[in-house]
Amino acid sequence: MEFDQALATWKEQIGEESVLCDRATLDRYARSTQPQGTQPRAILRPANTVEVCAIVQTAATYAVPIYPISRGRNWGYGDACAVTGGQVIVDLSRMNRILEINETLAYAVVEPGVTQGQLYEALKSTSLWMDVTGAGPETSILGNTLERGFGHTPYGDHYQMSAGYEVVLPDGRILTTGFGHYDEAKATYLYKAGVGPALDGLFTQSNLGIVTRMGVWLLPKPACMQGVVFSVADEAGIAPLVEALRELRLSGILQSTVHIGNDLRVISSGSQYPWTETNGKTPLPDPVREALCRQLNIGAWTGSGALYGTHHTVAAARAEIKRRLRGIAQVQFFDEALLELGRTVVKVGQPFGMFKQLGDRIAAAQSALDLLTGVPTTRYLKGAGWRSPNPVQDNNLDPLENGWGLFWLAPVLPMTGEAVLEVLDLVKPEFERYQFEPQITFSAINPRSLCGIITITYNKQNLVEAEQATRCYHALFDQLMQQGYIPYRVGTQSMQALAQGSQVFWDVAHQIKRSLDPDEILAPGRYSPLSVSAISTTPLTHS
Amino acid sequence: MEFDQALATWKEQIGEESVLCDRATLDRYARSTQPQGTQPRAILRPANTVEVCAIVQTAATYAVPIYPISRGRNWGYGDACAVTGGQVIVDLSRMNRILEINETLAYAVVEPGVTQGQLYEALKSTSLWMDVTGAGPETSILGNTLERGFGHTPYGDHYQMSAGYEVVLPDGRILTTGFGHYDEAKATYLYKAGVGPALDGLFTQSNLGIVTRMGVWLLPKPACMQGVVFSVADEAGIAPLVEALRELRLSGILQSTVHIGNDLRVISSGSQYPWTETNGKTPLPDPVREALCRQLNIGAWTGSGALYGTHHTVAAARAEIKRRLRGIAQVQFFDEALLELGRTVVKVGQPFGMFKQLGDRIAAAQSALDLLTGVPTTRYLKGAGWRSPNPVQDNNLDPLENGWGLFWLAPVLPMTGEAVLEVLDLVKPEFERYQFEPQITFSAINPRSLCGIITITYNKQNLVEAEQATRCYHALFDQLMQQGYIPYRVGTQSMQALAQGSQVFWDVAHQIKRSLDPDEILAPGRYSPLSVSAISTTPLTHS
Repeated sequence: MEFDQALATWKEQIGEESVLCDRATLDRYARSTQPQGTQPRAILRPANTVEVCAIVQTAATYAVPIYPISRGRNWGYGDACAVTGGQVIVDLSRMNRILEINETLAYAVVEPGVTQGQLYEALKSTSLWMDVTGAGPETSILGNTLERGFGHTPYGDHYQMSAGYEVVLPDGRILTTGFGHYDEAKATYLYKAGVGPALDGLFTQSNLGIVTRMGVWLLPKPACMQGVVFSVADEAGIAPLVEALRELRLSGILQSTVHIGNDLRVISSGSQYPWTETNGKTPLPDPVREALCRQLNIGAWTGSGALYGTHHTVAAARAEIKRRLRGIAQVQFFDEALLELGRTVVKVGQPFGMFKQLGDRIAAAQSALDLLTGVPTTRYLKGAGWRSPNPVQDNNLDPLENGWGLFWLAPVLPMTGEAVLEVLDLVKPEFERYQFEPQITFSAINPRSLCGIITITYNKQNLVEAEQATRCYHALFDQLMQQGYIPYRVGTQSMQALAQGSQVFWDVAHQIKRSLDPDEILAPGRYSPLSVSAISTTPLTHS
Repeated sequence: MEFDQALATWKEQIGEESVLCDRATLDRYARSTQPQGTQPRAILRPANTVEVCAIVQTAATYAVPIYPISRGRNWGYGDACAVTGGQVIVDLSRMNRILEINETLAYAVVEPGVTQGQLYEALKSTSLWMDVTGAGPETSILGNTLERGFGHTPYGDHYQMSAGYEVVLPDGRILTTGFGHYDEAKATYLYKAGVGPALDGLFTQSNLGIVTRMGVWLLPKPACMQGVVFSVADEAGIAPLVEALRELRLSGILQSTVHIGNDLRVISSGSQYPWTETNGKTPLPDPVREALCRQLNIGAWTGSGALYGTHHTVAAARAEIKRRLRGIAQVQFFDEALLELGRTVVKVGQPFGMFKQLGDRIAAAQSALDLLTGVPTTRYLKGAGWRSPNPVQDNNLDPLENGWGLFWLAPVLPMTGEAVLEVLDLVKPEFERYQFEPQITFSAINPRSLCGIITITYNKQNLVEAEQATRCYHALFDQLMQQGYIPYRVGTQSMQALAQGSQVFWDVAHQIKRSLDPDEILAPGRYSPLSVSAISTTPLTHS
């Protein structure tokens, strides 16, 4: 009854066409790369902040929990799903205005629905680059920032590079962080902390408000840019590489985020599981893995980063990187001009069947260069379809559309060789036990810590394999937690487990939750233990 | 009665010698660079976190408000004083352990009492530099960071360069931010945000907890370092300088914080108000000001920053800075070797009375170099004694010991020439009206915004002048706020005014306050409106 009244009110508030309850739509929002998504009760699609306020107030009036999503592409971490079934999804994708692009001060102001691809297009005619994640053009910039995701350039830490959030609170009030709440403030999007307590962090990875606007810092296009690729042959070779890269990051010589992926990560971004070569058997036999490495001419680890500056500053930094990595890794620099030259060579050789392999490597380097220059690319999504029984199509890499099975696990570790080896020693036996291939990336989002991205891909149609993947995920999660490698972010399946450990921190988070959202209207269970009241207000539609 | 019981309990908890109520001590803590400080009721000096917890619990039991200070050197912003009289000061200066220095990962863990000078001494035998403010060796690192203060190197934004706070909450529980609340966490001091809502910002510029420990990021000593000084002759010349510096900061060529001071700021860090030349009259006549500029060979604005890296990266960045500032500012680079050479030249010339002026300039450059290499220096405190009727002594520059009158006002503005000129147009007439000399610095603590530090110094013994200084402060504060130049931090005298504007933000801050500190035990009035209950529990001792 309460729910029906809420629905009727919402239809008045935002229009009937923006309130969706049909089964097909609900099923679509319930899809997940995890074995089981959660089923929403309705989908609301507000057009603006005023409508979001109205939605929230109605939700409070009728005690119906709502769950905001930006573009719903939180793949590998819960996708568009609420933590529990029975919540109403507030899909903000219609709020997709780029409200400002400021070339002088190098920032944009975006709404939740603005995608990487959309901002990229808008920036083409400007002197600015954005920092993109590897998740492709269809994902939300604001959503990724609130999850504290990261990219590839010196602006890789998205949360640190954002300012001035407009937030709709659970009771419908609008709060602006930083200086933005002073009407005339001139530095809202330029200085993050404002004055008084810095509140923006409260609205990241939480359920305290719906962020409807944010300033995003952008990079002025440099006079000169060069990508750099490091590779090491042996698995243990990552340890000295990490040590050297830490020094280069700490010294400011290397200002970009640095990513180091293992062979399987590189292989899977260019091709699918070799079903033919393995006669359909999993896990991947070592000889096939080795053959793939030889074929792609890659070692155990391949890293990338970039230099930005003038011709001279880039050259000087390049020299130091070469010097520091001598004997540790093979180092190659590349830029648009080099790739263009390569493409010409390949074209000349084509009629003679020459340089095919060079062509593949140029394509790979182009994707890396794209990410390093703010161009969204889908190439790195391919890895999510690694275990798919169906062929992966370059023109459709959406994990949900394809029904791919995917877990991401993202422990943070000190940026030392020792920590990396310890994490590997912990991760590999679990992958062997559960018979998956570990795709692993370590990303230096700041000079002192690495964020590991451990990918478990599985065939969702195979229920046994899906069960094994889930077990593998939880085994890894538990072990990493026990060893102190806490994730920087978790999927919906781990939010409550996480929020129940180490009591005082979470108690305080929950106290703040209660003070701002006493009826737990907003995203119950999201980084907070579910209270009895929240559970009772969230009946599953299937129940 | 309640208060006496609290006092007795505290004496049991932390020892009689650590509970001070004698008039002389209370008067000492009540000193201020503002015309009037606030009088505490008692001083507590805990030795460790456990004692802080006990203090807080007793304060809650007897409803006695307490106000934590680190070293009590928040000069120009309220010093060691609580916002209102009648609060009990919790002086954390005995908690002065450096708990860890990690050379590999380049950080230290400090307690509130650790001073800049202390950490500097401890780092001498290491490969690390710290980022220091200009406030000298006796100030607290943690205290400055919680006020979101800033320094001079690429680590200038202290809040951004800190992680893993241990916080005693108003009810005595201990919370740790970031990953620190997970027992085994390995990246507590390496990754700021942790997982779930980022709570560290809550405990800066607020009254929600007492921070008793924090990780501070440090700079590995670079292979090469060079300071750079820019100067422009005319006042309006700051506009194109700011435009060029913004581009250099945005491009990553210039990674350090950049400070640009006006002539009076430079003059006042080397000498006092010229009482003789002016026959004791204020304000400073233009001809005297011009003569002083000529004597010091300075223009309207002098800026500084630094380059850190290898010999080659520094040389390349230097070339770009020179190129970009050509025709805009005079640019000079300097380093330890150059100053050493200069000192030799001065020494050689000394017997002949030569190079006296060069000697002064080398001393000035040495102080700048100190700040740029993490050496605390008191030189820049001299400006606070500018209007003192007594001679300023190099060996005693503590503004409270000297009884100097001082207000600091710190508006944030976009890093554009236009905004700088607008702020100057607003500030100068007020200084003229109230007959003070504007010492002004603009500091680029990030590439997009400037923090203006406007200094009002006055003779505290002259009550008329003190009254004028107060009027001048409030006139400036109000005008800057109206024009949208909101301060990054305020003194105790403006905290309540600030927290009453723009309701939703401050309402939320206050809601959080009530949820964590329902009885307003902790620092009532600090960035929050004083509630009736807080006022009723804080009788002034003089009333």
